[in-house]
Amino acid sequence: MLAVTILGNNSALPMFDRHPTAQVVTTGDRLFLVDCGEGTQIQMNRYKIRRSKIGHVFISHLHGDHYYGLIGLLNSMSLTGREDALHIFGPPPLKEIIDLQLLHADTSLAFDLHFHPLGENGTLVDDERISISSFQVTHRIPCWGFLFREKRNPRRVDPDRAAAAGIPPSFFGKLKKGSDFQKDDGEIIPNESVTIPAPPGRSYAYCADTRFQPDIAETAKQVGLLYHEATYLDDQRGKAHVRYHSTARQAATIAAEANAGRLLLGHFSSKYETLDAFREEAVQVFPNTEVCREGVTYLIP
Amino acid sequence: MLAVTILGNNSALPMFDRHPTAQVVTTGDRLFLVDCGEGTQIQMNRYKIRRSKIGHVFISHLHGDHYYGLIGLLNSMSLTGREDALHIFGPPPLKEIIDLQLLHADTSLAFDLHFHPLGENGTLVDDERISISSFQVTHRIPCWGFLFREKRNPRRVDPDRAAAAGIPPSFFGKLKKGSDFQKDDGEIIPNESVTIPAPPGRSYAYCADTRFQPDIAETAKQVGLLYHEATYLDDQRGKAHVRYHSTARQAATIAAEANAGRLLLGHFSSKYETLDAFREEAVQVFPNTEVCREGVTYLIP
Repeated sequence: MLAVTILGNNSALPMFDRHPTAQVVTTGDRLFLVDCGEGTQIQMNRYKIRRSKIGHVFISHLHGDHYYGLIGLLNSMSLTGREDALHIFGPPPLKEIIDLQLLHADTSLAFDLHFHPLGENGTLVDDERISISSFQVTHRIPCWGFLFREKRNPRRVDPDRAAAAGIPPSFFGKLKKGSDFQKDDGEIIPNESVTIPAPPGRSYAYCADTRFQPDIAETAKQVGLLYHEATYLDDQRGKAHVRYHSTARQAATIAAEANAGRLLLGHFSSKYETLDAFREEAVQVFPNTEVCREGVTYLIP
Repeated sequence: MLAVTILGNNSALPMFDRHPTAQVVTTGDRLFLVDCGEGTQIQMNRYKIRRSKIGHVFISHLHGDHYYGLIGLLNSMSLTGREDALHIFGPPPLKEIIDLQLLHADTSLAFDLHFHPLGENGTLVDDERISISSFQVTHRIPCWGFLFREKRNPRRVDPDRAAAAGIPPSFFGKLKKGSDFQKDDGEIIPNESVTIPAPPGRSYAYCADTRFQPDIAETAKQVGLLYHEATYLDDQRGKAHVRYHSTARQAATIAAEANAGRLLLGHFSSKYETLDAFREEAVQVFPNTEVCREGVTYLIP
């Protein structure tokens, strides 16, 4: 299971009960926090997100609507007795900002905080279950997107075909790990002939604040779910360009070019009281589009 | 009119839909923001507080539940085109924290921000309508309270007595300003004999996070409304002391000693789901006590 829960879908100015950007990516019982605008911990209370399950935080850039809630969240984690280490991936100056605020509060966190500065595109997390990488996008200040890919499960043994090939069940463990089987007469039974591939791992691309950047479609090629900012509608394309943001139509263009499974739009300007027009504009280019709604969990197909 | 609107009544950990500390003091059409915990701007939206009317912000100390909402509020003021200067009074390192965050966001505020570091007790604002001063309280890190005093209005002319004393109406303007009247025969009519004193100016004392500190009662002597933190009930007096906080009973003791008009309790620990016990404990010592409720405006008598 890979899913994303939206805690904030608005751009900088909180309005219409919409909050600044924050999302929680869930796989199994692990939570990954992606951006953390002001009030994120309060949104977590509201939507019953378990803070203690968050092991990694990813901050796309240092505009406040993407990180002003982080320092308060760290304090609350500490006050509630967290002991597990926390990993934060963010723009390099974020560490100084956190440290300065802790220093003047005379506060030491109760847990280990490991800060990983973002830099060149690359792998941030890679374990047996998931890989997470960063990629640069085009904003007024340095800004990164994040790509989550569940690992493909190992091939499953097809017991009927394996038995027909004369492979004893005691060897099935090795088949799972990819071994071929050698019969007594020396004949090799190739692994692929008696095992079934698992479906490809699910994937999610988070494209933080960015100007229309066509090569994002390459980075997010075939992604299951693509989140792309859509601060404006396309009649504001000029303003979007000047302010280093995108329109709903541009986001849909990326999704179509990437051949994504589904598109999620977010980071809406406070000039829009309702959001239906964002979806209406995008579906003309990419039909499988949703508008981010706060508190909603979107499953990655 | 002097009044205070509560935007947050909780201590550090937001819980039970209670928010970290923030208050708005109103006199006439001027708003003064006192502390600014995370989410204050969202609470302002909820309770229809007009951001643009805030000219002065007072930050008591650098624990996050008292100021993490400030940087987001400054950004929102700037995004919505504020042009009026804003004055911030706070602990000296607050300026560096604000500047560092603006620097890495590559943001220049659209308005002039004047930062005034708090230091020795003293007058912060003094104009024809109000005086505001700071006083140090006892917390784990440097922390200040704030005392608001409306200026007493000028004496009013008593037209009957003035006429009976033979003072022409053309002199009433000078009477208002405090002049005595000299009759043609040289007799002096003392100002006090033909004017009526205005009632004393209203006053409000905000006692931020503090250990029980008896001399606060001297500072707040005769104050109309006293806000005093009450993080715990009195059975947690030992914990309150260790953590540099107060209990409801201690707050009431200060109010009684100060002979305050009314007491407001706030900054409740998240260990308390309901708040009735705070009032019940305090009224045993000081009957005219209220528990801060978010969104409620308390008039200063």
